[in-house]
Amino acid sequence: MGQLPNIAIVGATGLVGRTMAQVLEERNFEYDKIKLLASARSAGSFIRINNIEHQVEELSENSFEGIDIALFSAGGGISRKYAPIAAKAGAIVVDNSSAWRMDTDVPLVVPEVNSHDLAAHKGIIANPNCSTIQLVVVLDAINKVYGLKRVVCSTYQSISGAGQKGVDKLTNELFDQGDRAPSGDKHRIAFNTMFHPVSDFEGFTEEEKKMLFETRKILNNDDLKLAFTCVRLPIIGGHGESVNLELEKEFAIEDIKSLLSDSEGIILLDDIDNDEYPTPDIAKDTDPVYVGRVRRDSSVENGLYLWIVADNLRKGAATNAVQIAEKLVEMDLVRK
Amino acid sequence: MGQLPNIAIVGATGLVGRTMAQVLEERNFEYDKIKLLASARSAGSFIRINNIEHQVEELSENSFEGIDIALFSAGGGISRKYAPIAAKAGAIVVDNSSAWRMDTDVPLVVPEVNSHDLAAHKGIIANPNCSTIQLVVVLDAINKVYGLKRVVCSTYQSISGAGQKGVDKLTNELFDQGDRAPSGDKHRIAFNTMFHPVSDFEGFTEEEKKMLFETRKILNNDDLKLAFTCVRLPIIGGHGESVNLELEKEFAIEDIKSLLSDSEGIILLDDIDNDEYPTPDIAKDTDPVYVGRVRRDSSVENGLYLWIVADNLRKGAATNAVQIAEKLVEMDLVRK
Repeated sequence: MGQLPNIAIVGATGLVGRTMAQVLEERNFEYDKIKLLASARSAGSFIRINNIEHQVEELSENSFEGIDIALFSAGGGISRKYAPIAAKAGAIVVDNSSAWRMDTDVPLVVPEVNSHDLAAHKGIIANPNCSTIQLVVVLDAINKVYGLKRVVCSTYQSISGAGQKGVDKLTNELFDQGDRAPSGDKHRIAFNTMFHPVSDFEGFTEEEKKMLFETRKILNNDDLKLAFTCVRLPIIGGHGESVNLELEKEFAIEDIKSLLSDSEGIILLDDIDNDEYPTPDIAKDTDPVYVGRVRRDSSVENGLYLWIVADNLRKGAATNAVQIAEKLVEMDLVRK
Repeated sequence: MGQLPNIAIVGATGLVGRTMAQVLEERNFEYDKIKLLASARSAGSFIRINNIEHQVEELSENSFEGIDIALFSAGGGISRKYAPIAAKAGAIVVDNSSAWRMDTDVPLVVPEVNSHDLAAHKGIIANPNCSTIQLVVVLDAINKVYGLKRVVCSTYQSISGAGQKGVDKLTNELFDQGDRAPSGDKHRIAFNTMFHPVSDFEGFTEEEKKMLFETRKILNNDDLKLAFTCVRLPIIGGHGESVNLELEKEFAIEDIKSLLSDSEGIILLDDIDNDEYPTPDIAKDTDPVYVGRVRRDSSVENGLYLWIVADNLRKGAATNAVQIAEKLVEMDLVRK
């Protein structure tokens, strides 16, 4: 690659968009120009990246001239409309919404797992759901050596997964800030639990359906036995996942621990005797996927417990998108 | 039974003890006298029951003269020392601590499930762990008709399970109340997740170990395949449980829903299309066990998802203890 790519962030003022800008800076992602795009309501504000103030521009059909990589995080509606426009203008779109994830022409990529799928892109690449990403990083590492027979996963999800609106809802409910409008939701999130909106699939919520089908697509196994229950909680900083695995092959717990320790993108934090285990607080503002509570599940043959936590705004969204952009450059898939 | 029994509450000023007094009143439990007992530090304060102020007395070896039923909730140490003293003085102890639960001479009872075990008591009856109680009420109803093959359960537990100290920790962390001492814990609970202290069993926490062995004892099946992961959360009002069951027999989802609806102590709240599902907010200050998210788990033969919530201070502790006392009277097991 000769020149450095031009980057756009669509939805630059949202929780994930702002984190994308921060992660680009932290990882020293080399670009020529960067363009920050948002709705008319948010355009005009400034975001600082690498000590330069960038003014946010209003997203339009002409926003993508000269853009090589466009990181989208502005909701499904914006992605459905503007991702094809950006791709037609020559950009590779890395889309954080759910709009394109299950499209057979769109690679759904977690770089540690299936970056080889990037080569087949047709202009749009999908960033998986936050809770899916942290799970498949761990599942793939184990699957390669021991084979997965069945996965049962219950999630403990940060309300930041609902964006700034979700964080505001929690803050408002906790601290009774009268200047913020009440959410109108049936359930509060403060001191409570919530489920995501229901989907059209077997009584699953949208989140549970995403986890099921995205995990199968990323691991390239449409028959993988998966069970999901996804719960939203008044926590901030990361999603937790309680996972029960049935593996094809026998294992020693110490070998599983070594495997996880040695796997890219994973940090093993597993010393319950000394209260060492992954938490949202520990994951917050960091990029790895943390795993702990590695235990044998004696209720089934080759059973294994895991507790997985990652920052849903970073590895679960912004960091994974930037890692895809890095891979695109590394694999020489960017036109410049 | 001729006369009404005399009741004692040991640990009357704690979160569960206060709830025991409230539940006795609400359920119109008929007694002759009631004695409230606590440590020297808490003695002297007053608690109102049925419009009468009762002064809390200091617990001593002579506290149980004339007492017929003693409800204990003052921690394992107090129970280990004073429950035999109370029993020797002629009281039947209903103990909410974990001290006696796994003792083969001590019935471990959830009235909806195994009140028949009460008859064999030798002076001490154990109230199960909060998260165990709400689970076995549901498991037993299903087990009787369909048989249980395997249970995988991940809990979402209220910090009130750690008593007033736990609630204070959360309040302190959330609202930065400088007048309350910091907890000294490695992890905060506000916006975060925690695990219970570790046990001596296979890397399980104490809570996970309790759930495993207590569930087997209550359901009278030492070989039941059970898997537990227990998580403490910054929630108040009840414990949640994400449960994946494998049943022996085939079922229709509608039959499971009817069975649960018709079961004693269970309320089915399952209309995810309209955001109707159990939450800690809904369970708070009520006695039933709530079940929702009843779905078929297609990842295994005869697989079933459930989401179970109950108020851990009520059905998970005080209410269950008072229900045991009611059964003792009903079964004519009280000496008077």
